Amino acid sequence: MAPRLKYWGWGHEGQGLSPRDLETLLRTLARFGIRGSGNAHVPPLDGVSLRAPRLKPPDSLEAICTQEPYERILHAFGQSQPDSIRIFARDFDHAPDVIAYPRDEGDVTALMEWAGEVGAALVPYGGGSSVVGGVTPDIGQGFSGTITLDMSRMNRVLEVDPVSRAARIQGGARGPELEAGLKPHGMTLRHFPQSFQHSTLGGWIATRSGGHFATLYTHIDDLVESICMVTPAGRMQSRRLPGSGAGPSPDRLVIGSEGTLGIITEAWVRLQGRVSFKATAGYRFPGFLQAAGAVRAIAQAGLFPANARIVDGVELAVNGAGDGSFTLLVVSFESADHPVGAWMDRAEECARDHGGVPDVDWRANPDAHLKGAVGAWRDAFIRMPFARENLTPRGIISDTFESAITWDRFESFYHSVKDATKQGIREATGRDGAVSVRFSHAYPDGPAPYFAFHCGADPGSMLEQWRDIKRSVSDAVLDNGGTITHHHAIGRDHRPWYEKQRPPLFGDVLARAKGRLDPKGILNPGVLLARPADTSTA
Amino acid sequence: MAPRLKYWGWGHEGQGLSPRDLETLLRTLARFGIRGSGNAHVPPLDGVSLRAPRLKPPDSLEAICTQEPYERILHAFGQSQPDSIRIFARDFDHAPDVIAYPRDEGDVTALMEWAGEVGAALVPYGGGSSVVGGVTPDIGQGFSGTITLDMSRMNRVLEVDPVSRAARIQGGARGPELEAGLKPHGMTLRHFPQSFQHSTLGGWIATRSGGHFATLYTHIDDLVESICMVTPAGRMQSRRLPGSGAGPSPDRLVIGSEGTLGIITEAWVRLQGRVSFKATAGYRFPGFLQAAGAVRAIAQAGLFPANARIVDGVELAVNGAGDGSFTLLVVSFESADHPVGAWMDRAEECARDHGGVPDVDWRANPDAHLKGAVGAWRDAFIRMPFARENLTPRGIISDTFESAITWDRFESFYHSVKDATKQGIREATGRDGAVSVRFSHAYPDGPAPYFAFHCGADPGSMLEQWRDIKRSVSDAVLDNGGTITHHHAIGRDHRPWYEKQRPPLFGDVLARAKGRLDPKGILNPGVLLARPADTSTA
Repeated sequence: MAPRLKYWGWGHEGQGLSPRDLETLLRTLARFGIRGSGNAHVPPLDGVSLRAPRLKPPDSLEAICTQEPYERILHAFGQSQPDSIRIFARDFDHAPDVIAYPRDEGDVTALMEWAGEVGAALVPYGGGSSVVGGVTPDIGQGFSGTITLDMSRMNRVLEVDPVSRAARIQGGARGPELEAGLKPHGMTLRHFPQSFQHSTLGGWIATRSGGHFATLYTHIDDLVESICMVTPAGRMQSRRLPGSGAGPSPDRLVIGSEGTLGIITEAWVRLQGRVSFKATAGYRFPGFLQAAGAVRAIAQAGLFPANARIVDGVELAVNGAGDGSFTLLVVSFESADHPVGAWMDRAEECARDHGGVPDVDWRANPDAHLKGAVGAWRDAFIRMPFARENLTPRGIISDTFESAITWDRFESFYHSVKDATKQGIREATGRDGAVSVRFSHAYPDGPAPYFAFHCGADPGSMLEQWRDIKRSVSDAVLDNGGTITHHHAIGRDHRPWYEKQRPPLFGDVLARAKGRLDPKGILNPGVLLARPADTSTA
Repeated sequence: MAPRLKYWGWGHEGQGLSPRDLETLLRTLARFGIRGSGNAHVPPLDGVSLRAPRLKPPDSLEAICTQEPYERILHAFGQSQPDSIRIFARDFDHAPDVIAYPRDEGDVTALMEWAGEVGAALVPYGGGSSVVGGVTPDIGQGFSGTITLDMSRMNRVLEVDPVSRAARIQGGARGPELEAGLKPHGMTLRHFPQSFQHSTLGGWIATRSGGHFATLYTHIDDLVESICMVTPAGRMQSRRLPGSGAGPSPDRLVIGSEGTLGIITEAWVRLQGRVSFKATAGYRFPGFLQAAGAVRAIAQAGLFPANARIVDGVELAVNGAGDGSFTLLVVSFESADHPVGAWMDRAEECARDHGGVPDVDWRANPDAHLKGAVGAWRDAFIRMPFARENLTPRGIISDTFESAITWDRFESFYHSVKDATKQGIREATGRDGAVSVRFSHAYPDGPAPYFAFHCGADPGSMLEQWRDIKRSVSDAVLDNGGTITHHHAIGRDHRPWYEKQRPPLFGDVLARAKGRLDPKGILNPGVLLARPADTSTA
């Protein structure tokens, strides 16, 4: 039997940090004064109490539905910090009543009809990797129950067009599945969010996922050629076009709709040739702001590197990739078409102009991405999602948040948000935490800063302490001009700040769009949009 | 006194084709068997009969309103072929009753309130360059009159942010005005649609204008950082962000809304440094499809040339830039940051791989863009908008349409649409016309083909003959998988095909957006969206 997905953390049973990696992580955090208490026993599956299912699938849908306890527990949470806290607190009261696995669009429509008839909420579920409560079915009052619609059976690459470099892929295809389907054609989507193993194309589109490319094609938005979305009001299918000027883009209404308007059953996406030419370099800077200057120069030079990320000293130290004394800039170019030396040369000039010193020389090291601080941080990046399931039960909060800001306001944003995070941790927990910053993506007009923080918490009030910190950092992000999310999405956790960020009239338009496409309001209630009962603004 | 804008054609009084250029044009068309009849007398201004204005501005708005005949005549039409035919037929019955020139957002709001109170239609007007009836106030029944809202007084560059390379600019700024405001800062928007002299930033955003860049930043969409739109329901202002993943993009609802949801009063746009490095090359190909193969290779190589346009033999011949025996590919790279030799080298390999032969060698000619067939076509391109005012009164139809299509379907699209155009001309006029094709823009997954046609028509039924041809070509574009417009917009002329192209549910969502933002339906009635009275689908 294949290993099952863990219901308490990242990946499959048997996967996780090695004892040595865990020991290193805890020792490193201790160096920042962050010490966990308690142990890390996984809550036993049969110790979880679930309420009796409130729904019974009709005979016609029985074959694609399950109410098995493991499935209900697995689908009760995503991968956010509060999700993790609640898992270890055995808070499964909101677990879905039914998990449905549609095989095709007909099944999706039938499930929507059933949910509408019985007054149940329908929560779309791709890979379950949401870090913002997007799949956590806290649906509130007024529903007869919850059906989680798991798209994992609609996971095929349906068609590959090598001439236009595009493919038609089902919404439930996970990263490795779709890449495996493209590989025989010599093509790749090359969209690698950190969640790649356990997230889906439909989920990426619904949440405006951010992937591999640090510049240019940053969001999945740019890779979408057309979308098919099934809604309770019918099928919405856009035309396959490389570009268009025909009215507001229909795809851009779907992209970012987070399962509130319909289910993305398939999409045509733009592909890349497989990389033949690649070079990676690392540069050390004395401070974050110098490195940011280099990224600005590179982003404004029109070079479009695949990677132009900076990682500060704290983040390197926490991840065992540096001693805290320098900031690292990783630059890489890649091409399926041509050598990238001219591009690297110019990016290196930008780095040196701003005080960067090579960490590993790219000319002498074709595998520079595996070496030095660059390679060490890369290894840590892959391990990161496994940390939380070890830290939460030890009473250590470990969370991230991300934004985007124009360059002119970046420096004050950086200081203010970092200070607000430290202050928020202190106020909420009475202790000091570790706060680190990197850039996940960079644009000519501004970077996408990505913050991580760790702190000790009181086991009995960990959820409240997390909420207090989250409120502080989110207020700071908004007050300093940023977006509440660059690529993590809104979900349930970011909604209060999203409502402040978006133009109020646009919120009204979205509510009217939902009224047309999902008139009974059954789709992912509480995500992105307040339910009509919760607000008087619509 | 400054020369006035012509009400019968392009540009200011005194501007136009030189007698020699006109003679060349007519002689060239004659070589295709297209011979005009009649002369080209401009219809005298005082021979135009206008109905008495049905509206009288309130005292509070009198200072910014005019009902002067020249102004009403000037604002009665845009720059489309049917507009031109109707101008020379002196069909000015629909001329607006009032032209208003708001000075600020307060004026815009006051004008909306007045229009709403008296039940008048409000037609937004930027530079008046619409080729799809976007500013032609054929508003239908049910309004007390028409107010054209001319944005030309709101034309300032308000703020330049050199660090983020962005500027806040008013919606009514014409191309030359905004570039003049940016030049002292060493920056440029570098968005040069063919209408550049007589179109505005707000108009570009409202119509998804296509500009200078043939790849990557093709539409104004990509250059928009945030938008302020004033609607009858209030002000809608998006946050200035380099990138975001917070729900569906509010800007993408505004971009392409064609004045039906509100007036774009200002926007933050992304700028470029002024070009320091540039190279242009021309390559000759025996046929269009070989040249298209080269463009596909260049577009898929990730090189992002500023120019990668191909022009077929007929279009070169009509414009005096070739003898009809070859297709021309123009490739150029430009940068404010670095020499572009490595980029040109690789693009040249792509061109040669597909049978291209240099027209002018770029290495030896830094001013290659001014030389050979490249230079000759460039000169013709700048003169093109002046042709129609000479051809229409001679009974010659001269029109263009454009689309986008994925590469896998391009070849059949090219043949089918070209044939349908020839056939449509023959059926409508009983004569053969000249049909030519170029690429205006190119994407990794497909090109934006741009068609031009010329044909003789019967002076008495020119409008009907144009309509018949337009119907044939538009049906062919849709039937063969294209978009009804890549960057000319929908306006009134493309609406029937737009309604077939867009997903029906998306049309319903747009109608609901309009219901919220423009509840009385006063804004640009009949453009983009059918009026509720015209349809039962909303």
